[in-house]
Amino acid sequence: MAKKIILDLDTGIDDALALAYALGSEELDLIGVTATYGNVLVEDGARNDLALLELFGRSDIPVFVGESHALSRDGFEVLEISAFIHGKNGIGEAQIPDAQANVQEQSAVDFLIESVERYGDELVIVPTGAMTNIATAMQRSPEFAERAHIVFMGGALTVPGNVSPWAEANINQDPEAADYVVRHGKDVTMIGLDVTLQTLLTYEETKQWRAFDTPAGTALADATDFYITAYDTVAPHLGGCGLHDPLAVAVAVDPSLVDLLPINLKVDTEGPTRGRTIGDETRLNDPQKTANVAVGVQVERFLEELMKRIGRVARGEAVAAR
Amino acid sequence: MAKKIILDLDTGIDDALALAYALGSEELDLIGVTATYGNVLVEDGARNDLALLELFGRSDIPVFVGESHALSRDGFEVLEISAFIHGKNGIGEAQIPDAQANVQEQSAVDFLIESVERYGDELVIVPTGAMTNIATAMQRSPEFAERAHIVFMGGALTVPGNVSPWAEANINQDPEAADYVVRHGKDVTMIGLDVTLQTLLTYEETKQWRAFDTPAGTALADATDFYITAYDTVAPHLGGCGLHDPLAVAVAVDPSLVDLLPINLKVDTEGPTRGRTIGDETRLNDPQKTANVAVGVQVERFLEELMKRIGRVARGEAVAAR
Repeated sequence: MAKKIILDLDTGIDDALALAYALGSEELDLIGVTATYGNVLVEDGARNDLALLELFGRSDIPVFVGESHALSRDGFEVLEISAFIHGKNGIGEAQIPDAQANVQEQSAVDFLIESVERYGDELVIVPTGAMTNIATAMQRSPEFAERAHIVFMGGALTVPGNVSPWAEANINQDPEAADYVVRHGKDVTMIGLDVTLQTLLTYEETKQWRAFDTPAGTALADATDFYITAYDTVAPHLGGCGLHDPLAVAVAVDPSLVDLLPINLKVDTEGPTRGRTIGDETRLNDPQKTANVAVGVQVERFLEELMKRIGRVARGEAVAAR
Repeated sequence: MAKKIILDLDTGIDDALALAYALGSEELDLIGVTATYGNVLVEDGARNDLALLELFGRSDIPVFVGESHALSRDGFEVLEISAFIHGKNGIGEAQIPDAQANVQEQSAVDFLIESVERYGDELVIVPTGAMTNIATAMQRSPEFAERAHIVFMGGALTVPGNVSPWAEANINQDPEAADYVVRHGKDVTMIGLDVTLQTLLTYEETKQWRAFDTPAGTALADATDFYITAYDTVAPHLGGCGLHDPLAVAVAVDPSLVDLLPINLKVDTEGPTRGRTIGDETRLNDPQKTANVAVGVQVERFLEELMKRIGRVARGEAVAAR
């Protein structure tokens, strides 16, 4: 039986790739997308989710709108660097028409809580943006905190951050939410810059999607080329764009793609290193570890899986509804 | 054949335990102690090294005086916190008479360089204080940088620091030196707070040394009890004192005691996180890793080895000269 999955996306170019990865994975049953903010405003993220789902032939999948800003703030504006990397429309200025479908009336947080109640261990949740939805669900429902299986993209444990020398962008959007999630969650896997900056995509790969000459293939290639070009400017030493969000989905499918370090995590919410993910020294010797941080990745195997799975979607062959 | 070892100590209570661990290890041939600064002034460290070697019945082992201050500074003063943790005399106010022997005329740096030239792969160097001696040896001798095998106590990769939320004490003494060592060394193993704060000693263990009723056992128990008491004040959540320096020696004997993460390291020398050990993002995808960071430790097995080896020395049975 396919594993049920909810993607909590701030779509975002690599969020679009994560969505395609999930839809190209026979092992997964995507039961819904919850929208968060970060690369884009939450409304724009939800619009992109609906548009991409229709483009990929899966407009049956519901989209839920989540929290619009950080726990400790009153509002949210897209950072200049986010717009530079993801484009003003979030998907690298790729032109994808608005979907026919609308967002659900139910809130993202309610859908998350209800889904964990209903599916328990059959469900994995993959947040790839600010974790405000997840933290809010945990604050409202202790059962959610206790039972949710979470694989999030974010953080940096053994490498510097990407918005400062210590903070990664997703965590930085809402450090209080991320701290709440890693302190209260019982099964949290962190896919951070430690591994995602080892997994790179280049124009060579996007060429293959473009060659399919499908609307989905062209849109994925257009968006990702924008992303690679931005990476050429902000991180030229890498030689490609980091496959942040799709790696988190890939690990939800197959944890053996990464080496996991069991650890009790915290997020610095005060002082100069606000937004840093680091081990909680007060729980260092607690034998129960509530988090696992990916510190190594099988790069070649992941890239093969990615090209296979996103290739299906780019050819217009997203896995059918079950 | 025993592995040759040089200890580069700022003695220091846990340095004294590291010395005892080495002298209680049949697998090791301690060919010299080089003195550095940190817990104490370099002169006081050398005095303690000579005194302890005589106390342990191994006054045949030469002691070399090293650099007295950090690469970027003109002098060095012992921090108040160091004196609080190690006592004003560095060994927890334990009264150990001055040795008959004197320090060598040769400098620590020259001895380090000469020893690597002579012994190459048969030698391991274990720095447990400021790494100024090691960096200076690397700067003077590219061959030293290329060939030296180094297992150092210091740094914090997956946990916060102990002198600030990001800096560990040894690295903090001379961030430039530590950065030089991890960037230029070809085989550097980091035994940091990630693992040393998992390995704790309590009054229960020091009682056993005291019960031997030997000068060595009494001095080791007196010094370590002082250390445990200081830990009760500065880190009461731990429930014991961290076995920082002896763990580095233990790993030099038997690397299987720890889980090692291959990584290319750097030390932040600028900005608010000066003194932080972290992966070098510019060498993240370099397949050659020049460092290994211990991220897990077999606590029980290490403690058994420690009590066995230091027990020998506390009973007055340090391994004889070879």
